[in-house]
Amino acid sequence: MTNPVVVEVLRGARVESRHRGAGAVVDAGGAVALAFGEIDEPVFPRSAVKALQSLPLVESGAADALRLSDAEIALACASHSGAQAHVEAAAAMLAKAGLDAASLACGAHWPLGEDASRALARAGQTPSPLHNNCSGKHAGFLCLACVSGWDAKGYEQATHPVQRAARTAIADVTGATLGEGVCATDGCSIPTYAIPLRALALGFARLATGEGLAPGRAAAARRIFAAVAANPAMVAGEGRFDTEVMRLFGPRVFVKTGAEGVYCAALPELGLGFAVKADDGATRAAQAMIATLIRRFLTGEEDRTRLSPFAAPNLRNWNGIEVGALRAAGPLAETRA
Amino acid sequence: MTNPVVVEVLRGARVESRHRGAGAVVDAGGAVALAFGEIDEPVFPRSAVKALQSLPLVESGAADALRLSDAEIALACASHSGAQAHVEAAAAMLAKAGLDAASLACGAHWPLGEDASRALARAGQTPSPLHNNCSGKHAGFLCLACVSGWDAKGYEQATHPVQRAARTAIADVTGATLGEGVCATDGCSIPTYAIPLRALALGFARLATGEGLAPGRAAAARRIFAAVAANPAMVAGEGRFDTEVMRLFGPRVFVKTGAEGVYCAALPELGLGFAVKADDGATRAAQAMIATLIRRFLTGEEDRTRLSPFAAPNLRNWNGIEVGALRAAGPLAETRA
Repeated sequence: MTNPVVVEVLRGARVESRHRGAGAVVDAGGAVALAFGEIDEPVFPRSAVKALQSLPLVESGAADALRLSDAEIALACASHSGAQAHVEAAAAMLAKAGLDAASLACGAHWPLGEDASRALARAGQTPSPLHNNCSGKHAGFLCLACVSGWDAKGYEQATHPVQRAARTAIADVTGATLGEGVCATDGCSIPTYAIPLRALALGFARLATGEGLAPGRAAAARRIFAAVAANPAMVAGEGRFDTEVMRLFGPRVFVKTGAEGVYCAALPELGLGFAVKADDGATRAAQAMIATLIRRFLTGEEDRTRLSPFAAPNLRNWNGIEVGALRAAGPLAETRA
Repeated sequence: MTNPVVVEVLRGARVESRHRGAGAVVDAGGAVALAFGEIDEPVFPRSAVKALQSLPLVESGAADALRLSDAEIALACASHSGAQAHVEAAAAMLAKAGLDAASLACGAHWPLGEDASRALARAGQTPSPLHNNCSGKHAGFLCLACVSGWDAKGYEQATHPVQRAARTAIADVTGATLGEGVCATDGCSIPTYAIPLRALALGFARLATGEGLAPGRAAAARRIFAAVAANPAMVAGEGRFDTEVMRLFGPRVFVKTGAEGVYCAALPELGLGFAVKADDGATRAAQAMIATLIRRFLTGEEDRTRLSPFAAPNLRNWNGIEVGALRAAGPLAETRA
């Protein structure tokens, strides 16, 4: 498998580093609007499918039964920065299920957000599982278990009904087969299933349009997309790509990162889903890829201009001197209209 | 240019990400002991050549004139973690030159070391240029300027005598031509010159052996290597690759990271220099590459065993569960004896 070079990192006038990758843009009927690289090879989507993993929480009625707010539903789809607002919302979700941080199986780590991490240190504290960037998703799993009457213990295991429900939702929406051979363990200890980019893009086109989904699932998808659009800071955090892009475009653009260079996205107004993977796992490359692809399909000049700093960011050094830039290359550069 | 895949990142039984790259192992006479990928294409070595950049400081007699300690000379070759010991040593170097942090042109950033960064936050402080990972190198530049009677101002500019001396040392030792076309600006605002991996490896073989160097320069190289070997924690910091590898092997192994996936190294006992670059700029890949290459040339089984966790580290998640590993691939895997 040799995917093309799609992002170059310039220092001065020279290419210092280069990223290879693959990407697919697909409509809800499965028609490929644009693709490059190997899009039928399964890749682990990691956190990029949190919106899919949270479908059972909403679709089952558990979110309503516990009166989860839109911000809390957005947090269930988040790789959050571990800021105070994120931690409080995760704790509130757990409290609604009659649980607390001790039930979380995601493990603890210092907040992803550097400001949040230093604020915690400054307060003389150490991180709890609530600070884990996946705590909202895990709180959502626990809410689903609580309302469904399932034992919360072991909810992170592939065989638990919570994970079986998540797997079924992902398989149904993407059309991918999620067997043993494509299963591994994610950073937060839940199973992650490798899925082709083509299927991931199709899944997000379906989520964004409701096409091909049962009415209850389509309604859940609408609710989740609206909750995220209304709470972009809950899904990532201040200054982070996902939050800043969705702030710019509101409900017009959905975008979600996954570890190891994955991004999924959707443009509901065009009925398109997107999925990219940088071969080497670099987030900077995946961000440039997904922003460049989204930009390609936006027709308004103002929209395109607003996305340019995300598609081809300048690089500045510690003194603020511009020392280089990222730029699209190969088939990704050719997609620039 | 298509370099081979040399490091694979496994999650469970599947390859999740892959890194391409090039590498060269060269003796002081220029004979290539081992190579893969494009080794004649210039790459920015960034901080991997700090030992070369510090040659004029020692060779000129400036280090002795200011009575720099071995720990301070090691810090001049460092990309340090910004821990208290690093900050204090950088300040002491500046004081010996009659200067202070205000003279540093490297810019300020939060300490590279996560523990050091949180400790600074916990103390309610913010970073100064002394915390910049390059502050020791910059303090060394200022010491050289001070003893040489050069105006300290503008010492980071390519036209300043300090940078001209560094460029001459790098060009002489590596044999590379460092013209305008290969010059860009580094993260700490000094010039960085792109150099082929073959020439970088040759340069480190010469540094490690003194072969092909004038006696004064060979003595300076010996002094620098000995200073680093005696102070591995000054060159990086606790828990970091360079420090931990050099702690294991003492003067037998020199290894230094550079940004964007570069490593240079030397095995003085075998008279070999090493240089690698991960195409995508990933440090994890460059570390696996350089450790695998060094391991290849170590004949003792115990030595090889001690390097294995650096060459092919296991990946654990937030709960400490082993979820994957890095492993050498392609021509790098074939180099395993």
